[in-house]
This record gives sequence, C-alpha cells and structure tokens, in this order.
Amino acid sequence: MTIQLYGFWRSNAAFRVRVALALKQLPFEEIEVDILSGRQFDAAYAQVNTEHVVPTLVDHGHRIFQSMAIMEYLDETYPEPRLLPLDAKDRAYARALAFVSIADAHPLTVPRVRKHLAQAFDADSAAIEAWCRHWVREGLATYERLLTQRPAAPFALGDVPTVADIGIAGQIALAHVYDMDLVAYPLVAALGKQCFKLPEFAQAHPFEQPGYQRVGI
Amino acid sequence: MTIQLYGFWRSNAAFRVRVALALKQLPFEEIEVDILSGRQFDAAYAQVNTEHVVPTLVDHGHRIFQSMAIMEYLDETYPEPRLLPLDAKDRAYARALAFVSIADAHPLTVPRVRKHLAQAFDADSAAIEAWCRHWVREGLATYERLLTQRPAAPFALGDVPTVADIGIAGQIALAHVYDMDLVAYPLVAALGKQCFKLPEFAQAHPFEQPGYQRVGI
Repeated sequence: MTIQLYGFWRSNAAFRVRVALALKQLPFEEIEVDILSGRQFDAAYAQVNTEHVVPTLVDHGHRIFQSMAIMEYLDETYPEPRLLPLDAKDRAYARALAFVSIADAHPLTVPRVRKHLAQAFDADSAAIEAWCRHWVREGLATYERLLTQRPAAPFALGDVPTVADIGIAGQIALAHVYDMDLVAYPLVAALGKQCFKLPEFAQAHPFEQPGYQRVGI
Repeated sequence: MTIQLYGFWRSNAAFRVRVALALKQLPFEEIEVDILSGRQFDAAYAQVNTEHVVPTLVDHGHRIFQSMAIMEYLDETYPEPRLLPLDAKDRAYARALAFVSIADAHPLTVPRVRKHLAQAFDADSAAIEAWCRHWVREGLATYERLLTQRPAAPFALGDVPTVADIGIAGQIALAHVYDMDLVAYPLVAALGKQCFKLPEFAQAHPFEQPGYQRVGI
C-alpha cells in the first residue's frame, strides 16, 4: 500500500482526508491514533507529526500534515477527479467554504481545546459539550447563510463535490457526533443528503470507522 | 484602485493578506472594519461577508473571503513572485506550516471566542488574556519544533518568503499584541527577524496600521 493515513474515527480532519482519498479512488491503510486517549502525544507519534495532531498522510514514505494541505497535495498529485474547480474565483470560493469549518468552527472543538477548558475554567463535561455545540451551530449557521446567497446545484460549486462539500459534510458529521439535528439549516441538510448519498462520503463518516464500531460515543 | 481589503489593525488574518498583497506589489485600499467594536456584525458588512469576519478582498468587484483562500487566489491570479513553491511536496509543507497558525492556533483567540468565553464561563479579561496567551504559546512551540526538524534557510522553504513565513510571522505578531517575548522560541524569533526586515512584512504589522496608531492596545 503506497498511502497510509494516521487518523481516528472521531477526527473531523481525518474524515475530510478519507473522503478526498475515496473520491480519487486511492486505496490507503488507516493507522489509528486514539486522540481521545492522548495517543497523539506519544513519543512515537511525535516522530510522525510534531504538531501532535491527526491526520498525517504518508505517500510513498513522504509525510504531509494538515487536512487542507493534504487535500491540495492530493489534487495536485492525483488530479482526477478534481477536488477544486479550475476557475480561480471558483477555487477561492470552494476553499473559503471549506475554511469556514476547517479554520473557524472545527478548531474550537478539538481535544486539546476541550482539555484546556477544563483546566482553565474548571469546566465540567456538560459545559464543554455546550461549548462544542455552540461552535458546531455557528459553523452550520454560517453555511446556511452562504448557501442562501449562492444555492448548491446540487453540490456547493455545481455538479461534482469539491473541498467545499467536504468541509460542509465534516461540519454535519460534527453535528452527528454531538447528537444535534439540522432542522434550522435546511440548505445545509439538503447538501449533506447529496454528499452522504455517495459511498465516498458515507463510508468515511465517523460512525462507520472501526474505532467507533468498537466503543461508540 | 482595483483591489480593496476589508481589514482591521488587530486582525491577524488581515495581516496575512496585507503581506501577500505587498509581496506581489499589488496596490490596495484598506477599508477598516472595527472588529473589537463588533462592526463585522453590521448589516452593511453582512452584505460583504456573511461570515461576519475580516478580511474580505475585493478584486475588480469580486469578493473573496478567508485569508488562505485569498492568498491562494492571489498566487493563481498574480503569479509573481510566488507565495507557494512549485514542487507539490514543498507546497504541501508550506501550506501545512501556514495552517498551524491559520487553522489551529489563531482561531482560538479571535473576538467571537473571547466574547463567548466571557458568556459561557464568566471569564474576566485576565482569564481571557491568559487563554489567548496559552494558544499563542502553543502555536509558537509547534513552529519551534517544526523549524528544528527542518531549519529555515533563511525562510521556511528557502530563499524567498512563502505562505509558511506569512503564517509564522502572523503568529509572532499575535505574540506582540499580547506583549509576549520569543525567548523560548529562538528559531521562530530568527525567522521572524528575517521576515520583519522586509518592508512588506514590517509595514503590514498590526502596530503600523492607522487604527492602532490612533488608539493603541
């Protein structure tokens, strides 16, 4: 197997990369790093990724980290089918949509943030869950407004899924993890339905991964 | 003027775009959106950017949001000098370095997060500042480890600055805003010195903007 992915069922960033690899029909082996148990801080994994996060992609022995950098790399190295449109303005819009989750909403809910909330503010698990749900909602609400301005047809940039849809589907998967519905976000929900109809998205979903199957939430 | 930038002195994401525009020698007009006073939520600005964040770049009337999407757009539309290397693996590394700040460290310190800490945990301004400093340090420490693994020469990817250096310089600018020194991060400090020697970085610094000149921190 030429491609390995260090990931975890609960990692939203690993979800994105799984979808990207599946859309490009690139076979890969996933190596589990249990980020809920802190395995990303193990000395052995620090050799793989000194930021102590998942995912890390290994392609022919070359390591790449950060989900968006990985998706851009895959699109440049294995161009078909494209994860980004060809037109520069459309590429910018696709990336901007992806970043609403990747760079704004999702970073606020990751393990090191939940842990630091407990340390800094003595937050209990209910307060930490409420914090996470707040930012999941913020991301979904932003996506709903964006899809109102420029309707999906059926995907965010048109006929085929791009990094934009991967970002939005990831935000939806976060809602699933926190047991939230999408009633207030009908355009997001409709886009999600289109995405998760595709096996590339459905099989990458957190709840379909072996680690989740073993222990549940 | 064909390019407008909605920004603010304190916005780290606007800093990145100012550097990118300056490196490409693209003249632009900056339109101030006072994010510390909540002007990003004004109805007029919501028409410009429905995510209610800065920066937004307007190029020949076309709006683009999210700092990394803007930098990629500028690199595709105005290719010289390049903000990203040509080799796919180097591009991935340059982006990944940028994302350590853009998608991991910086999102934890933005106004809406500081505001929600006060609301959700009754955090006072000292506790919120401590929170922000924690994540500024985390980003700097990650950069220090990464630069140890792959030394800058003199910039992160070699002879010329890329999005990687813009991300690292942004994290350094955050440290300046929170009045923190870089003693524990000598490789980061050395890279920052290289960057801020260049007028393109120096003139984009938060403290050099008109809004800061008027009111200070």
